[in-house]
Amino acid sequence: MEKVNLILLTCVLFIAAITIGYVFLIYHKIKKLKVVNKDVANNAAYIRSGAITFLKREFKIIVPFIAIVALVFVGLGFIPAFKSAEGVGWESAICFVVGATFSALAGLVGMLSATNANSRTADAANEHGLPRALHVAFSGGAVLGLCVVGFGLIGLTGLFFAAYGILNATNGGDSIKAVLEASHIITGYGLGCSMVALFGRVGGGIYTKCADVGADIVGKIEANIDEDDARNPATIADNVGDNVGDIAGMSSDLCESYVGSIVSAMTLATVFIQTELGKGQDALANLNIRLVIFPLALAGLGIIASIISVLIIRLREWKDPQKTLDIATYIAVGIVIVASVFLSVFYLRNADGSFMSVDGHAAPWAIAAVAAGLACGVAVGKIAEIYTSADYKTVKHIAKESETGHATNIIAGFASGMKSTAATVIALSVGIILAYFCFGIYGIGLAAVGMLSTAGITISVDGYGPISDNAGGLAQMSGLRPEVREITDHLDAVGNTTAAVGKGFCTGSATFTALALVLSYGQVSGLIEDITANSAYTNMTVDVTPFVIGILIGVMVPFLFSSLVINSVGKAANKMVLEIRQQFQEHPGILAGTEKPDYNRCIDIATRASLKEMIVPGIVAVVTPILVGVLLGKAGLGALLIGGLASSGMLAIFMANSGGAWDNAKKYIEQIGKKGTEAHHAAVTGDTVGDPLKDTAGPTMDILIKLMSVIALIMAPMISSGWSVWSLIVK
Amino acid sequence: MEKVNLILLTCVLFIAAITIGYVFLIYHKIKKLKVVNKDVANNAAYIRSGAITFLKREFKIIVPFIAIVALVFVGLGFIPAFKSAEGVGWESAICFVVGATFSALAGLVGMLSATNANSRTADAANEHGLPRALHVAFSGGAVLGLCVVGFGLIGLTGLFFAAYGILNATNGGDSIKAVLEASHIITGYGLGCSMVALFGRVGGGIYTKCADVGADIVGKIEANIDEDDARNPATIADNVGDNVGDIAGMSSDLCESYVGSIVSAMTLATVFIQTELGKGQDALANLNIRLVIFPLALAGLGIIASIISVLIIRLREWKDPQKTLDIATYIAVGIVIVASVFLSVFYLRNADGSFMSVDGHAAPWAIAAVAAGLACGVAVGKIAEIYTSADYKTVKHIAKESETGHATNIIAGFASGMKSTAATVIALSVGIILAYFCFGIYGIGLAAVGMLSTAGITISVDGYGPISDNAGGLAQMSGLRPEVREITDHLDAVGNTTAAVGKGFCTGSATFTALALVLSYGQVSGLIEDITANSAYTNMTVDVTPFVIGILIGVMVPFLFSSLVINSVGKAANKMVLEIRQQFQEHPGILAGTEKPDYNRCIDIATRASLKEMIVPGIVAVVTPILVGVLLGKAGLGALLIGGLASSGMLAIFMANSGGAWDNAKKYIEQIGKKGTEAHHAAVTGDTVGDPLKDTAGPTMDILIKLMSVIALIMAPMISSGWSVWSLIVK
Repeated sequence: MEKVNLILLTCVLFIAAITIGYVFLIYHKIKKLKVVNKDVANNAAYIRSGAITFLKREFKIIVPFIAIVALVFVGLGFIPAFKSAEGVGWESAICFVVGATFSALAGLVGMLSATNANSRTADAANEHGLPRALHVAFSGGAVLGLCVVGFGLIGLTGLFFAAYGILNATNGGDSIKAVLEASHIITGYGLGCSMVALFGRVGGGIYTKCADVGADIVGKIEANIDEDDARNPATIADNVGDNVGDIAGMSSDLCESYVGSIVSAMTLATVFIQTELGKGQDALANLNIRLVIFPLALAGLGIIASIISVLIIRLREWKDPQKTLDIATYIAVGIVIVASVFLSVFYLRNADGSFMSVDGHAAPWAIAAVAAGLACGVAVGKIAEIYTSADYKTVKHIAKESETGHATNIIAGFASGMKSTAATVIALSVGIILAYFCFGIYGIGLAAVGMLSTAGITISVDGYGPISDNAGGLAQMSGLRPEVREITDHLDAVGNTTAAVGKGFCTGSATFTALALVLSYGQVSGLIEDITANSAYTNMTVDVTPFVIGILIGVMVPFLFSSLVINSVGKAANKMVLEIRQQFQEHPGILAGTEKPDYNRCIDIATRASLKEMIVPGIVAVVTPILVGVLLGKAGLGALLIGGLASSGMLAIFMANSGGAWDNAKKYIEQIGKKGTEAHHAAVTGDTVGDPLKDTAGPTMDILIKLMSVIALIMAPMISSGWSVWSLIVK
Repeated sequence: MEKVNLILLTCVLFIAAITIGYVFLIYHKIKKLKVVNKDVANNAAYIRSGAITFLKREFKIIVPFIAIVALVFVGLGFIPAFKSAEGVGWESAICFVVGATFSALAGLVGMLSATNANSRTADAANEHGLPRALHVAFSGGAVLGLCVVGFGLIGLTGLFFAAYGILNATNGGDSIKAVLEASHIITGYGLGCSMVALFGRVGGGIYTKCADVGADIVGKIEANIDEDDARNPATIADNVGDNVGDIAGMSSDLCESYVGSIVSAMTLATVFIQTELGKGQDALANLNIRLVIFPLALAGLGIIASIISVLIIRLREWKDPQKTLDIATYIAVGIVIVASVFLSVFYLRNADGSFMSVDGHAAPWAIAAVAAGLACGVAVGKIAEIYTSADYKTVKHIAKESETGHATNIIAGFASGMKSTAATVIALSVGIILAYFCFGIYGIGLAAVGMLSTAGITISVDGYGPISDNAGGLAQMSGLRPEVREITDHLDAVGNTTAAVGKGFCTGSATFTALALVLSYGQVSGLIEDITANSAYTNMTVDVTPFVIGILIGVMVPFLFSSLVINSVGKAANKMVLEIRQQFQEHPGILAGTEKPDYNRCIDIATRASLKEMIVPGIVAVVTPILVGVLLGKAGLGALLIGGLASSGMLAIFMANSGGAWDNAKKYIEQIGKKGTEAHHAAVTGDTVGDPLKDTAGPTMDILIKLMSVIALIMAPMISSGWSVWSLIVK
């Protein structure tokens, strides 16, 4: 490998290490802050211990699962057909385990930080007012954001580097071969992240929503007490849920998205180079292993940008939360764009010093692809805002429909989410086309990396929301002054708006990443003739009938998966409702305020239910692609991915936007002073229906499709010969 | 053309003519029955005039639309690129207009019959009891069923025959060429049916549900009066809605499905023969234009079977409705299966007397393909029953979830519908694979024809339901004895169960038909290499990037379309609610029973709203494939169809089964004596939410995808060269 590559990788590794160091620094700074109010401290301790208990039990289920899959990988490595597969063999098994561990670590550290930051934020708001509270909450969020990208990148780069070093030493110095094989091996890392993220999102998502829905139904609707009222036995469980779902689950999820985007771009580059190699060395003159390392370097730049941005924000206390978060984002995005121009201009060059060229476009066009991705992310976020913010007509329309009852509220929200898929798909399509026009299919992978390069700061902002929310919960439970709750609500509201753009980036990058993986699968499985072909015709040839059936199944799987997850929330919430009702009935003192509810039983119900319920969806996600690949062959599996990509995207958008719109319609009705009216009750129904859609099922969609894609990629060499049960019967 | 073909076609034409004659005979028999009860007669007259007014106004919008599209066809015929297109030119324009007319006629006659039969059924139940009421209701349904298949088939066969005759005479006796061109031309007939069906389903569906939802919200939930209470100003509109939606809309819809399945199988056969022709005359030895005529003959057999079945049932008065409907169905299916064995064994032979062979399978295998289709339809129907009947656990689960409130009821129903897609897709996939294994891709087309061959009787049973429902409404409104309502409710309930199987056939055949159309498009556009290739590899080659984007858009369109339709119902229902509330407020005498409500204003609101709202979805359905074809080219358009096929199928299943489950959960709660409880209120919300899903948006899905497919088929020759905006930019 060229020296410049080695230096770059070392730098990236170094940056990631510094990031993690900085994470622990902030973490301890937050932890050192003393919580003055006793009630807040006590309640926070409750929440923290509930959250830790959940994670412990969750890991007890995930660890054996991971171990089994790792053993399967090791076993597969001994089967000849898999020898050349992406991410198979003991090397990949190690990567897989490390990926799973780091993804879990990201969730764990993020959650530990959040459960410290929430009480400190509430306390700061109580003792010192908004600026200090903002500072603490933002710092808590920053730990989350930086540890996700830090852990994600250090593992990925470290393993890539190590694998390269070992392979290079053992194969006698064929560095190109070493790079290609190393990037095969790290596919396992991405898969490990995805697997943990799936369980984290599903388990955490079920937990948080069953507690939330259960608490709302009995508390808000039946007993007419406020959210986070300490008399509600599910209050603690509800707040624990925010931490295990919106914090730990989200952190693992975003770690997966972040790593996934980088891995898929690297895989695409590898596939490009291998295809070129297949045509003879001459073609290689135009392609270069720098393309494989470029996504890592881009991610490194993104982390630097994020750290600088966090440093600047934390320098002093700000007064305006919106401005603070905006500035943080702008700084990071600005730095990334400028720095990546330099990176692509100076780094993406051939040995003779000329610009590298992909699909006929010179290297600087790579930046255009990245910019197309960023623009697409902004557009998708903006569309989500239009469909879910009370400033626009959709939410107002839903609020109006609430006046005629529960049913019309549901119908309106349902339709609005479905409608929002149209503009979003158009934005995504335009983004894909632009990225493709700028830098070929590789440009699609780069666009995804670009969108998530500033994930460090995006996740900080994303994490800041639930921390403020939790702080508000603590303030309410602990009976702090109403002004404190107002401060935290203000912090939270701003977080919601800014998070919409962040979510746009995640939705967009998921589509781009999954598409890059699907295209890599297409080339590796032999469905796509020549992925490097000059624009006009990158053709794919498929066997029609299994392909059509694959599409049908692919479009169906996200529906099935969502239904399983949503049903689980419903079932668990039902148990929760019965438990809360029982406590209220058997101990009338609870509602009177003279008796303490039994928080632990609610926590226990949520923990058990969510862990039990996350297993079946997990199996569906893993088994489907294997089954379809074996039964229908490479065309069927390819179709499964394409259908799944489109369908999961659509359901994700639909569920996120319907849920968001219902949520904000309820808030809007409260704002215009109609709390407690029939319309408000109807709106609460909508909000409750939307909860499992937007916070449990919706966010798992992208993990599902990426997980299926990576599994398909691993299976590709086995079925590339055309072997399948289908072909055996037909022939 | 061989003599046997001419004789067969003449027979089919003759049978269809007899069917129509028989329809008018029953129609007049029903009409001649005198309605003894004055109130029933008056109310029925109200409903009938409201329904006729709606259809008149609807036709005023449809006619210009049809005229414009017909002119476009004529115009396109002058453009060289379209010369060889399916269904373009003045000949096709004529077919298009005739198709539209016959589809509209099927709706009109069916509705006129239903609006006669409803009052006669109520009256018969009142005067003579169940057997007579059953007889009248079944006869009314039979008019519906037979007129749909009669009109559908007579138009199709007549036009095909005429086109063949003219072409054969003008091209100097090249009968093969004449058959192929004739079957191109009649594509227009199918398109005409689809277009009217789309408007009928959407307009009628919005009408019926806005009236239903509006009446329920204010009547049942707010004013606590029964359904069909004469004091509710929307009662008449609600009953009119049943006739324009569930009768006229459904008739046009099923006429479209019926004709669509035959046309798609004929098209597939034509495409097969043309592909073989392209390889030189030798290959033709194995293929024969009998394959083109076979679907028509199969349909003819089906009609005979349906008529025999209706004749037998009408011979005497039956006591057990369930048994009656079952026997009717069994007789028809039995006759079709036996007769089609003979047809395929004796008719599907080559000139030398040997069996014709498709995809390496001898002719008798055609029956296996038809049987696979029938079995698939039964399975899909059974699955729907399991997910929507109160005899199974899903509905009971939803009923239980209703106890914890509106939100959990919605969540449970939502998830159950999504889950039902899994089993349904597997059943459909197995059906497609079997049909394909039995008789190649042509077998898929045949399976669809087989499923709908007994449509005459299926639709009779389907139509019998709303007639009984309407009779019940009339009984309630006219203050007949409660026993009368019990009789009609009993009739209605049986209809619902039996209709589930019928719906399974429709869902199944829609998928098979659309798939056949998509495959034909694939061959005509040049995406598919050789559709007649011996099983193993019927390959399709596509340009990857536009294909993926096409899939994204294809999966999205049904979401957008559904949202538009559902939103329309919501908007219209809202207007209805405000109107009813206003009437109740301004005229307190209405609820007291001393004053008559103003039925006409409600009818007017429903009429205006539904007609206004059906236009945008109609434009979306027509414009999308044209736009995608022009922008993204043949691969993008093919992907649009495949994605749309899968997505519309999934949404149709999801919406139908969620809606059905909610509906029956409500009925189940009523049955177990919990009417009026909180759980019942929650269940009513679910039922109301489900209404626009299952009765408006859901049933339009199959029309949408078939309409898009036919438009794509027409565009295929233009874009088969590879021309598109995409290719212009890339090249």
